[in-house]
Amino acid sequence: MYDSIVIGGGPAAVSAAINLKILNKNFLWLGAASSKKAASAELVRNYPGLPEVTGRQLMWAFENHAGRLGAVRRAELATAVYDLGGRFAVAAGTETYEGKTVILCTGVSAQKPIEGEEEFLGRGVSYCATCDGFLYKGKKIAVLLFDKAFEHEAEYLCTLAEKAYVMPMYRGCGVKAENAEITVRMPAAIRGGLKAEKLVFADGELAVDGIFVLRASVSPAVLLRGLQTEGGHVVADRQCRTNVAGVFAAGDCTGRPYQYAKAVGEGNIAAHSAAEYLSGQGRA
Amino acid sequence: MYDSIVIGGGPAAVSAAINLKILNKNFLWLGAASSKKAASAELVRNYPGLPEVTGRQLMWAFENHAGRLGAVRRAELATAVYDLGGRFAVAAGTETYEGKTVILCTGVSAQKPIEGEEEFLGRGVSYCATCDGFLYKGKKIAVLLFDKAFEHEAEYLCTLAEKAYVMPMYRGCGVKAENAEITVRMPAAIRGGLKAEKLVFADGELAVDGIFVLRASVSPAVLLRGLQTEGGHVVADRQCRTNVAGVFAAGDCTGRPYQYAKAVGEGNIAAHSAAEYLSGQGRA
Repeated sequence: MYDSIVIGGGPAAVSAAINLKILNKNFLWLGAASSKKAASAELVRNYPGLPEVTGRQLMWAFENHAGRLGAVRRAELATAVYDLGGRFAVAAGTETYEGKTVILCTGVSAQKPIEGEEEFLGRGVSYCATCDGFLYKGKKIAVLLFDKAFEHEAEYLCTLAEKAYVMPMYRGCGVKAENAEITVRMPAAIRGGLKAEKLVFADGELAVDGIFVLRASVSPAVLLRGLQTEGGHVVADRQCRTNVAGVFAAGDCTGRPYQYAKAVGEGNIAAHSAAEYLSGQGRA
Repeated sequence: MYDSIVIGGGPAAVSAAINLKILNKNFLWLGAASSKKAASAELVRNYPGLPEVTGRQLMWAFENHAGRLGAVRRAELATAVYDLGGRFAVAAGTETYEGKTVILCTGVSAQKPIEGEEEFLGRGVSYCATCDGFLYKGKKIAVLLFDKAFEHEAEYLCTLAEKAYVMPMYRGCGVKAENAEITVRMPAAIRGGLKAEKLVFADGELAVDGIFVLRASVSPAVLLRGLQTEGGHVVADRQCRTNVAGVFAAGDCTGRPYQYAKAVGEGNIAAHSAAEYLSGQGRA
């Protein structure tokens, strides 16, 4: 049982991990990939202390800092958080991890979930190639690919499926597989009956047996049922506490401004709040 | 008329100044001294991106960053903020500056105000040697010195007063003046009638004509009448807005955790909130 499980790969998650390490907490840091968004800035001029850096350099400095302290991100995508009452179970890949607290640093996605995505999650829609790939042996699948980091997962799915429609949401997709059809199309909706049956596009439909949605993060509202959100952001107070006791949120997922310094500051606060919560639990 | 006036000399103030500069705002940065507290840390391990630095190195990096952008702290102590309705007047030294917004980054003081200090402010108690020194020509004064940075002000007062009781609240006071009596005593209270008349100690009293209290910052509640505080902290929301429209607060003055990253994050937020407020004013 971990003291805390940090979910995310951006500046807020790095800051939370650094602080949990220094606070001597036993924690797990789950982030499928380092934040692409954070690394994409051409020039960052307002992260105090590092006057002119690229987003990539800044993320490198952050991760290097965490690494020096022995805080290492595990490249796994958290797909669900279950509130077990006083503790939490976090599903990632084929594993489930337990923690006394959870710190959500999932960022904000420019893309909203696709219509039907959440409805059919677990019923023909999956976020996890490793966990659910075997269900589609010899079947026809669609793979919605939101990040280059997941191309190996798409290729793994191709080894199982009979036919895979791979739809990258970025340029320069490098997925190589004989049975893959790479097509740049953004589906408008996922439709079906008891389970997902097809993707709907502006100009037609595509019937499939399963749909994999591979993103760098799952939105907090989908991750944890009952978590209060507003306008796409997690509602958190000044101590980064959410409406669920033991769950904290930091960084872009809590709202604007979307800034490195703000994210790093909230990661720090969330780690301290989690530590305070843990010590309160110890006394109870 | 400035767009904004930033008050303070610590990490939150530096971050606010950096961001106002980048947001192209016309602002004034008033800080009597660089934060001694922020510079005093022997080793800082949790400011992401700079893995192992002393507090002094970190403050140097912060101020150097601001300086590169052309954001320069003016070494003046803000002693009062007046809400003029839609704009603010900030008194510092013998000057008064006007701003559309104010960002308070005053830190927290380990010392509470001395009993009677606020009551007699402007009536025998002064925060400003330059402004009020001339009132005490040939008189007997006490100088409560909370920071080495103000020793030159104490010496200036000695050139005016007949006799000065200089009371440093730190070791190694370097004030040199023939008419100065340097004594390490912490007064318990300031007492008087219409105006301050004496300092009260645990073991006696000292009658004086005037009392100068020279600190690196004036507490927010004393600076601005009507500002909501709670337990010694400014009450601010997640956007760093206070109960006074146009006044924002960031850093230690808003509460725990007292951390560089938290302060820097809030300075960023406060600058963005001030910019948003200004653009709202522009539309009104």
